[in-house]
Amino acid sequence: VKIAVDAMGGDFAPGEIVKGALQAAREYKQAIILVGDEEKVLAELGSDYPVELISIVHAPEVIAMGEHPAVAVRRKKNSSIVRATQLVKDGKASALVSAGSTGAAMASALLGLGRIKGIDRPAIAGVLPSEKGYTVLLDVGANVDCKPHNLQQFSVMGYLYAKRVLGIANPRVGLLSNGEEETKGSEVTLAAYPLLQQAGINFVGNIEGRDIFRGTVDVAVCDGFIGNIVLKAGEGIAGALYKTLKEEINKSWAAKIGIVMAIKALNRFKKRIDYAEYGGAPLLGVNGVSIICHGSSTAKALKNGIRVAMESVDNCLVDAILESISQTEISEGVGGELAKRSV
Amino acid sequence: VKIAVDAMGGDFAPGEIVKGALQAAREYKQAIILVGDEEKVLAELGSDYPVELISIVHAPEVIAMGEHPAVAVRRKKNSSIVRATQLVKDGKASALVSAGSTGAAMASALLGLGRIKGIDRPAIAGVLPSEKGYTVLLDVGANVDCKPHNLQQFSVMGYLYAKRVLGIANPRVGLLSNGEEETKGSEVTLAAYPLLQQAGINFVGNIEGRDIFRGTVDVAVCDGFIGNIVLKAGEGIAGALYKTLKEEINKSWAAKIGIVMAIKALNRFKKRIDYAEYGGAPLLGVNGVSIICHGSSTAKALKNGIRVAMESVDNCLVDAILESISQTEISEGVGGELAKRSV
Repeated sequence: VKIAVDAMGGDFAPGEIVKGALQAAREYKQAIILVGDEEKVLAELGSDYPVELISIVHAPEVIAMGEHPAVAVRRKKNSSIVRATQLVKDGKASALVSAGSTGAAMASALLGLGRIKGIDRPAIAGVLPSEKGYTVLLDVGANVDCKPHNLQQFSVMGYLYAKRVLGIANPRVGLLSNGEEETKGSEVTLAAYPLLQQAGINFVGNIEGRDIFRGTVDVAVCDGFIGNIVLKAGEGIAGALYKTLKEEINKSWAAKIGIVMAIKALNRFKKRIDYAEYGGAPLLGVNGVSIICHGSSTAKALKNGIRVAMESVDNCLVDAILESISQTEISEGVGGELAKRSV
Repeated sequence: VKIAVDAMGGDFAPGEIVKGALQAAREYKQAIILVGDEEKVLAELGSDYPVELISIVHAPEVIAMGEHPAVAVRRKKNSSIVRATQLVKDGKASALVSAGSTGAAMASALLGLGRIKGIDRPAIAGVLPSEKGYTVLLDVGANVDCKPHNLQQFSVMGYLYAKRVLGIANPRVGLLSNGEEETKGSEVTLAAYPLLQQAGINFVGNIEGRDIFRGTVDVAVCDGFIGNIVLKAGEGIAGALYKTLKEEINKSWAAKIGIVMAIKALNRFKKRIDYAEYGGAPLLGVNGVSIICHGSSTAKALKNGIRVAMESVDNCLVDAILESISQTEISEGVGGELAKRSV
């Protein structure tokens, strides 16, 4: 089992990416294929790296953040993301990990790997820290405007991810809304509600924004427009709180000394709220494991993204989704009908 | 100038409400009319209160959280929220403040005060703490599904609120989206974008979730479904972070001692991130000043809500919106057209 890593994607590529891949190779004894400009990758690897675990596939082209994803993916066959995806398609790698353009990773997966039968639209599943562990939030950006049956499919994929990869026995799935009552919601979520009830998952009903971080559910379902805003708002508020705390501490000597004494506790705190700790966001619904990491991924984040990829492969995530979707009557049946009627 | 306070609304009513009203009366020398069950209000007031500043209007009925707002408001003419609204309509009070059911406060304002001419839907403006001060987020729950021209009107009202009441010279207004580029957005926000450009405000374009808390804008515009989710997610994450921090600190003696030394800094931190510090959320777009406070408002939150009401009255917020809306060509003109075409 090998993992393909897009060595050229991300704000700190290839330096941090190669470093993270090396850490993962050593720590997990994981075979990794670094896909990117061979010369640059070799320069980052240096002379002392585990040659039995690290191989390189040369891919000189790069897709920049500003490029139109679908167009760029079609044109740049020798870009690192397209070549990494191709390795998965050809069975030469079991999964791919990229911190490059999310749009390019998505377009590349859709074109190269294709959708799982029965899934109309793949979703990106963000894994956010909560009071009690982690909450899977999906979609966090793959689809802007969603139909009710899309939300139903997301709920099944999120449920399976939480169960298989996070190891939660019977994950609680909530539909993100503006109130807990069944009567609350937008046109789309009101129509999605009965579909989630029929999805064969542990659907607990509507949830509010605060539930994501309180850990009252394991999976929170929403469209990609809302999920993206909530994900980034969460990042923003965590950053703002940490900065504010530091500012206030720096105002007094007693506080500074006190904080030195509490530094271990603060570091544990920081670790628990750190997005990089979980690693990447899986792109669910495509025929293969594709993990999308934050653009500003450090070596640690990348290493954790590789861990997530390994866990997804080990737990046969793609097969589980395929099986579950084919068994439950979703999307084309009641879902499609209701969607057409109400939106 | 008198402020009407719904003494019976809120989780801790009438105790905390009356206490907050008393604090505001004393601290701001503000005349206040407490609207509610006279006997209960008098019991909370005790014998030593400033009779020259506090008066009572008896309103024995209460609208509970579960009741249908519009129905309850029509039926219960002697409920505290309906009587408080009536005082504003009759010119006996200049503003009202309530921590009761948001739906009832809205229905009561719409029926009792009516909409400002040119505003199709009022919006609730949440004022959230950011790294640099405050960010106005609207709508945070009055309207679930919005049309592009609704967002345009929200942007004008939010701009005027930030300018008049928060005292920001030329507030920067952003449209909440899933990316900064003009091409990013949902069907509704993409159609709203040009309308905000034409709204005669300082529109800075699309913003992301993180910008709300970083203070890169003064006003963030979205529909009430998204705004409500983001507001509550923000509350949830702030609460979760504080709890996590405390848990980690309690694990070690050194940390506990350290934190005692840093306690003032931590308290300043807590104060800066405390939602109650700002007070209430103004309901913008109705013919009068109506401030909606959090259901779990303490005396401090209520006092701050009264301060917000006073500032809104002093700065002629309602007149400013009326004037601005009648001057700029919005809603019926380009806005309405575009809205019809694209949604």
